[in-house]
Amino acid sequence: MENERLILVTNDDSVNAKGIHALVEMATQFGRVIVVAPDKPQSGMGHAITINHPLRLAETTIFGAVEAFSCSGTPVDCVKLGIYEVLHRKPDLILSGINHGENSSTNVLYSGTMSAAIEGAMEGIPSIGFSLADFDANADFAATQYYGAKIIQQLLDRPISPSVCLNVNVPKLNLDAIQGIQVCKQAHAYWADRFERRKDQFGRDYFWLTGEFAAVDQRPDTDLKALKNGFVSVVPTHFDLTSHETLQQIKHWKI
Amino acid sequence: MENERLILVTNDDSVNAKGIHALVEMATQFGRVIVVAPDKPQSGMGHAITINHPLRLAETTIFGAVEAFSCSGTPVDCVKLGIYEVLHRKPDLILSGINHGENSSTNVLYSGTMSAAIEGAMEGIPSIGFSLADFDANADFAATQYYGAKIIQQLLDRPISPSVCLNVNVPKLNLDAIQGIQVCKQAHAYWADRFERRKDQFGRDYFWLTGEFAAVDQRPDTDLKALKNGFVSVVPTHFDLTSHETLQQIKHWKI
Repeated sequence: MENERLILVTNDDSVNAKGIHALVEMATQFGRVIVVAPDKPQSGMGHAITINHPLRLAETTIFGAVEAFSCSGTPVDCVKLGIYEVLHRKPDLILSGINHGENSSTNVLYSGTMSAAIEGAMEGIPSIGFSLADFDANADFAATQYYGAKIIQQLLDRPISPSVCLNVNVPKLNLDAIQGIQVCKQAHAYWADRFERRKDQFGRDYFWLTGEFAAVDQRPDTDLKALKNGFVSVVPTHFDLTSHETLQQIKHWKI
Repeated sequence: MENERLILVTNDDSVNAKGIHALVEMATQFGRVIVVAPDKPQSGMGHAITINHPLRLAETTIFGAVEAFSCSGTPVDCVKLGIYEVLHRKPDLILSGINHGENSSTNVLYSGTMSAAIEGAMEGIPSIGFSLADFDANADFAATQYYGAKIIQQLLDRPISPSVCLNVNVPKLNLDAIQGIQVCKQAHAYWADRFERRKDQFGRDYFWLTGEFAAVDQRPDTDLKALKNGFVSVVPTHFDLTSHETLQQIKHWKI
């Protein structure tokens, strides 16, 4: 079909993750799906791109009838390679995930899943990142598929600015326990980081990043609050990092 | 001195880059400097953090009398390790750079230099990222040092929200050709990506990311415009990626 909708699917947990297979299953009802996703886990890679090493791309049959490629790079590399070396055109839709683990609040900055969607927005392509608040490799993605399909349909029916993508997070609840969908703000929160310091076999220190997520945002309409109340959160997310409020304050700085 | 200002310096070009040595030289006039920076180039790493490998930290004498550590991780890892494992307190100021190459416009998302400053803002620490529009390993950082010191002094004299950092870019011009400083917006621009496809010794394809930077933003008060006109650009930069405009449009989505 000439006019069939073309959908690029990626993630950051790699082509082997259960979440991307759930996403492909959900996406196929909306058009022709092509997967370009990392060949190994790329969690926490944020908006990283690979510029000091060459990139590799390999066709894989792991998605059965769905055309798919694994890529040696980051999620953002996958979007760029997908558009320019696999599709040779911009897809009609980019879907990223389903991430094993939440990408609400400021986690959007660390998230490879969401960075792929933001890269899509930078290319002017409607894009959605999906995350489930469950790190389990065998997590149940049924509720995410149910609400995810509704959100895709809504975006197709009522397009938003192509410079804005959607950050969708789903609480770890059974489908019938989920309260619905809330469109909301990115909560202000941060990681109270700690490192676990260990000794290697030569007695030298090494560190594992750990920490606790500290929600400091008391506003009612944030993604963290929505998730806590059992809703699927949808945050319209863009790539303009300008603080317009501070800009107004300091634009007449005389230096 | 008990109350001496404590300044954490990092970058993404590694402890070996000329730019970070120029930044340390500039920073020492404002307080006690401690360097925690990558042990190898980490350009393009964006807001990546290292969660699947352990991190290493090694003291280095490469900065002479200035206490310094090289780290196996990303610029954001350096900020986290710097605060929690080296300083064991929040510094009074975080300075990142001076990057060899411009980080204006949407490059802020790919930039390790700026992601370190944004991480500082997430920790509520006044932070500035400095970049010079010159990729040369032997670039001349004199003008950046001159204007950089003025901007640091201004931020110390007139603090802004600690959740907002500054993205400072300096054009590749002699000091006397620079027109001054402009506080401005992040321009909307993007990389028209291309890949250079080559064959390895086994005849297999590999790809190098390349492309052209396409400025699509005609607004007068952007960083790209300021740099083009010979000004040092200063963009107040935050970590709230919510598109509040789209949020207003879609907050009553009935799904």
